Amino acid sequence: MNQAATLKEAIDKHLHELPFASLQPANLYEPMHYLLGLKGKRIRPILTMMAYAAVSGRDPMEAMRLSAALELFHNFTLMHDDIMDRAPMRRGQPTVHTKWNEDVAILSGDALFAWSMGEMVAEFPQHAAALVEEYTRVSLEVCEGQMEDMDFASQKDVSIDAYLEMIRKKTAALLGGCLRMGAIAAGADIETQKEFQAFGESMGIAFQLQDDLMDAFPPENFGKQLGGDIIECKKTYLTLKAFSLAGPEDHAKLSAHYEKQGGGEEKVKQVLAIFEGLNIDQITRQLIGEYVQKARNLSQSLSEKTAFAPLKSYLQEIADRKL
Amino acid sequence: MNQAATLKEAIDKHLHELPFASLQPANLYEPMHYLLGLKGKRIRPILTMMAYAAVSGRDPMEAMRLSAALELFHNFTLMHDDIMDRAPMRRGQPTVHTKWNEDVAILSGDALFAWSMGEMVAEFPQHAAALVEEYTRVSLEVCEGQMEDMDFASQKDVSIDAYLEMIRKKTAALLGGCLRMGAIAAGADIETQKEFQAFGESMGIAFQLQDDLMDAFPPENFGKQLGGDIIECKKTYLTLKAFSLAGPEDHAKLSAHYEKQGGGEEKVKQVLAIFEGLNIDQITRQLIGEYVQKARNLSQSLSEKTAFAPLKSYLQEIADRKL
Repeated sequence: MNQAATLKEAIDKHLHELPFASLQPANLYEPMHYLLGLKGKRIRPILTMMAYAAVSGRDPMEAMRLSAALELFHNFTLMHDDIMDRAPMRRGQPTVHTKWNEDVAILSGDALFAWSMGEMVAEFPQHAAALVEEYTRVSLEVCEGQMEDMDFASQKDVSIDAYLEMIRKKTAALLGGCLRMGAIAAGADIETQKEFQAFGESMGIAFQLQDDLMDAFPPENFGKQLGGDIIECKKTYLTLKAFSLAGPEDHAKLSAHYEKQGGGEEKVKQVLAIFEGLNIDQITRQLIGEYVQKARNLSQSLSEKTAFAPLKSYLQEIADRKL
Repeated sequence: MNQAATLKEAIDKHLHELPFASLQPANLYEPMHYLLGLKGKRIRPILTMMAYAAVSGRDPMEAMRLSAALELFHNFTLMHDDIMDRAPMRRGQPTVHTKWNEDVAILSGDALFAWSMGEMVAEFPQHAAALVEEYTRVSLEVCEGQMEDMDFASQKDVSIDAYLEMIRKKTAALLGGCLRMGAIAAGADIETQKEFQAFGESMGIAFQLQDDLMDAFPPENFGKQLGGDIIECKKTYLTLKAFSLAGPEDHAKLSAHYEKQGGGEEKVKQVLAIFEGLNIDQITRQLIGEYVQKARNLSQSLSEKTAFAPLKSYLQEIADRKL
């Protein structure tokens, strides 16, 4: 078993042993136990543990509670986002607000956020102030990103810069923050902390752009429905880029397709034809490449001053599945 | 102007100068500005500042950000509670979820909680770990209290002990926590911290029981509607005590009255007659007296080791309006 798999197993065990199933009131704590039990890849806590070990040269398990706190935070955002997104299912099971109700999902999410805060500083009281500062920054960015994502749905003109900044905050900021908090707990200097953060954010943006790309240009044997984002009229990097490059005729066609959700295979086919005509796949791949290159440069710098190899190979492993 | 009034003015100014009105995305930050602008008595931050000054002998303004953080936390709970309580108005103005929508109220509340966390430790990095630990405990108790309050609405049998524990967590825990965090920031020993907390909790429970009492037995010229809790079939201390003491006949009558909301003046009159026959007002006043006595004992102990006089007179001021 490689290190990431070992850590994942330990994290799953730690999360499973949290006392949520036996605490009262049950309507507050059971939803936490339920959502955490739906599993997940535990990418965030693995990043934190690896960053801690890379900087300190110590056992990554020393940062278990901090790392698990960031998985708890992630699950808090899932619980609340699912309400806002009216999502009935998550990982094949009913979401918390569907299984219980919205009041329970709001309050249980709040309590999960509160719980995570205490776990975050428990192992590293000497770094508590710096950890809280970073945790606050990240939490606010995640909230900002989620709000912008909701705002964009009803906005006519969304710039590509605004979109990239939205995905940085909504998705990548937490990955960067997980790495940075691991580094903070290990006593890293500010420069190193910032490099960990920037590395995580670059990878995070690359992963999100890859998700956007695969919706329209999937690899072979890709499980998901082709063009789901197109059917839902989601503003992704591909859409926004296509609108910005399209001539009057394509622009009019795209506008018509993005006026209302639905439309099925025929709509997907027509939009894809426009994307292809505008070379949107190449352009997206190139932008992904730029973020990956940025991450690579940071990885090189970090490899010189920390035991970065396990992190590098873990990120490569994720990238191989994604990129 | 007495000290509490001076502090309140400074807190209002500090809160007004937070940058929420100018931050983006506006849907995330404007609701914070709006809710804080509806004012309030600022009891919680005043308690924190006074506890800080009482223990340290220093200027209470040194604990402004910590104290304001606790008012931000209080407003976060109001924003989310108003969703759960389906409350259209607060302090004569539309609630956030009414003025914007529920998604905005959920996410803006989350961000307000996150923001408060950072403010809480900004002035006292050396006490960050202890402050976070206490803040986590209090936040979880507030969530537990709110959930129990919602649970009780649909539960047939609620014990008086369970009710008292619910109001301790929902209302009193934050008052106790505000005092304790002021003491923590000032470097108080654990024993003193616990006394501050217990003092605040005892006063908080007394205040809540007084609110229960005044609904049915108001002082002269009391502004609120008589028996609002009775009309809404709210389980208060008075109701639960009446059920526990009533003979078969009164019990049957009460059960009928508490079967469905509404009923107006006639129902209030009949329930009040039962309350009076069972001496519920005297019994409630006696219980309030017990909590006040407990607070008085703690106040005496705290007066011996801290500069407690301003806190004592501020709490007396609140009590004079309430008790």
